[in-house]
Amino acid sequence: MALDLRADPIDLTAALVDVPSESGQEAALADMVEAALRADAPHLEVVRNGDAVLARTNLGRPSRVILAGHLDTVPVNGNLPVRREGGHLHGLGTVDMKGGDAVFLHLAAAITEPKHDVTFIFYDCEEVDAARNGLGRIERELPDWLRADLAIVGEPSNAVIEAGCQGTMRVQLKVRGQRAHTARAWRGSNAIHGLVEPLRRLAEYHPRTPKIDGLTYREGLQAVRVHGGVAGNVVPDEAVLEINHRFAPDRSPAQAEQHLRQVFEGFELSVVDISPGALPGLDAPAARELIEAAGGQPVAKLGWTDVARFSALGMAAVNFGPGDPALAHTQQENVAVSDITQVAKVLRSFLGG
Amino acid sequence: MALDLRADPIDLTAALVDVPSESGQEAALADMVEAALRADAPHLEVVRNGDAVLARTNLGRPSRVILAGHLDTVPVNGNLPVRREGGHLHGLGTVDMKGGDAVFLHLAAAITEPKHDVTFIFYDCEEVDAARNGLGRIERELPDWLRADLAIVGEPSNAVIEAGCQGTMRVQLKVRGQRAHTARAWRGSNAIHGLVEPLRRLAEYHPRTPKIDGLTYREGLQAVRVHGGVAGNVVPDEAVLEINHRFAPDRSPAQAEQHLRQVFEGFELSVVDISPGALPGLDAPAARELIEAAGGQPVAKLGWTDVARFSALGMAAVNFGPGDPALAHTQQENVAVSDITQVAKVLRSFLGG
Repeated sequence: MALDLRADPIDLTAALVDVPSESGQEAALADMVEAALRADAPHLEVVRNGDAVLARTNLGRPSRVILAGHLDTVPVNGNLPVRREGGHLHGLGTVDMKGGDAVFLHLAAAITEPKHDVTFIFYDCEEVDAARNGLGRIERELPDWLRADLAIVGEPSNAVIEAGCQGTMRVQLKVRGQRAHTARAWRGSNAIHGLVEPLRRLAEYHPRTPKIDGLTYREGLQAVRVHGGVAGNVVPDEAVLEINHRFAPDRSPAQAEQHLRQVFEGFELSVVDISPGALPGLDAPAARELIEAAGGQPVAKLGWTDVARFSALGMAAVNFGPGDPALAHTQQENVAVSDITQVAKVLRSFLGG
Repeated sequence: MALDLRADPIDLTAALVDVPSESGQEAALADMVEAALRADAPHLEVVRNGDAVLARTNLGRPSRVILAGHLDTVPVNGNLPVRREGGHLHGLGTVDMKGGDAVFLHLAAAITEPKHDVTFIFYDCEEVDAARNGLGRIERELPDWLRADLAIVGEPSNAVIEAGCQGTMRVQLKVRGQRAHTARAWRGSNAIHGLVEPLRRLAEYHPRTPKIDGLTYREGLQAVRVHGGVAGNVVPDEAVLEINHRFAPDRSPAQAEQHLRQVFEGFELSVVDISPGALPGLDAPAARELIEAAGGQPVAKLGWTDVARFSALGMAAVNFGPGDPALAHTQQENVAVSDITQVAKVLRSFLGG
């Protein structure tokens, strides 16, 4: 089966959804994307890198825009093949993020003389460990393909421009005690009972909602895992709480860590992983043009996405894609076709094809 | 190697310790015990049942006493072979409970004309799931071997008579919430945060210390396990706390359960398992004689032991054995040889050989 990039982005979304592409198994879809770009967009320079496909114009424009979308999905969950019902497409990847991919592929073929030079990146392994993310490999092997003034990541954003992104950090809080037989519990010290105080601080925590460049971010502090215990008759000597902190991009990772150390003062805390946020960066000219084309006020991105990777490379970066991000990774994943049409319309106006 | 039941109980303890007998692998030790009883105690009726060995006098005495000890140990932990140092024997099983076994085996050979008829029970699989316990099999297959007026279980009790035993019960407390992405935590409800209140009640709980037949029991309520969590970026929708309650024998299992339902009112509680306690039963004539022979005030048994099984069969039952129960299941397990001698002396006086 070949993809027809000249088809309506809605039909193109459906075609992409029906090629399964769980992380690590994107080869078939990447082959089709590569063949379609070579056939339907002969004005673009196309390269293949692993299971990522990259394509760009080289028109000497004063500015360059990246349109990036991952090709992979989470594992199938009884939600294939695609199903169209009323104004919605249902199925795995309709939201996360083959709708965005379809719009970008459509534009790759449709707009031969864009106002900005454009780099299209369709990449692999976004839904798994950050170390496997195809963008990291591209950064190592094809760094000049990641130079631009603005990156638009097609992750679902309800067809609204989401700017910047919050940082995310996971820490482990360990409470220690002393083992004893539960029949003589007073000889020990119960580490699980010792979770009362850190859990109380968590439950009573009031997250900040800072306003940055006119966008309101909403931080969060949540226990995501707890475990402890030795045996059914032993006073446990260790209990571990794993906590996820989402922090607005006005704080660096170091500042966010310092904040958590204050919140949990008196407790043993270690950082499991940490990803910086990205400031909105909406004063870049290309970003301003995009917002104008969208005709609306951008909103703050609360989750962490690859926007932060582009931001770290020194360009403005936003999320802009069809679909409700709250439906991503759910079995009921579905996208309003009007979102697909809206994103395509805004980007066509922005790129001026 | 053959066991010499006429040896000093201290040497006999050392010999037993050096035959590994982790639960389920007691056959070699049971073979040796059976052969030794047949060779050195020809006045006894001996039967083999699985990896348990039973022996008894049939002298027509007006009362019968059971001396019971398990042959198995927890897994070896770098603490074999036996090592004698000063006044102590070190090694796996010195405390739990080959010291008690050695005393009983010694008496089996030494006392041919006891004041009470005596039934010796050396059994398997006490350290594992209750369903595998050799006493349960004996109860099903040889019920008349479990008839007596008093049972003495040789579990470590610091060579002091421990009477009755506390009941034990495990319950699961479940807190439910609602999943959400941690970047939008306000859309969910964090089940782990919901542990604050039950943990507060646990940490602030004041256990009873009721006095029964002159013995003081000390109850306990301890979290023994906690777990919860879905993924590092998900607000968890379930957290489970496992709680162990030790209750004095003035409360039935139903009363103890009712108590826990009051303590954790408002929370979802389910009973995992429950074992009744055993009242001291010290008014039985044979029990009074034993206490007199020991020349001291008995103390309350806080842990749960097979004493409760004998108690449920309608006889008085006590723990009486060498060694500190707090050392059981530790790598440093060791017994004062004076404890072994003391228990042997008391029982010889009690049985009047």
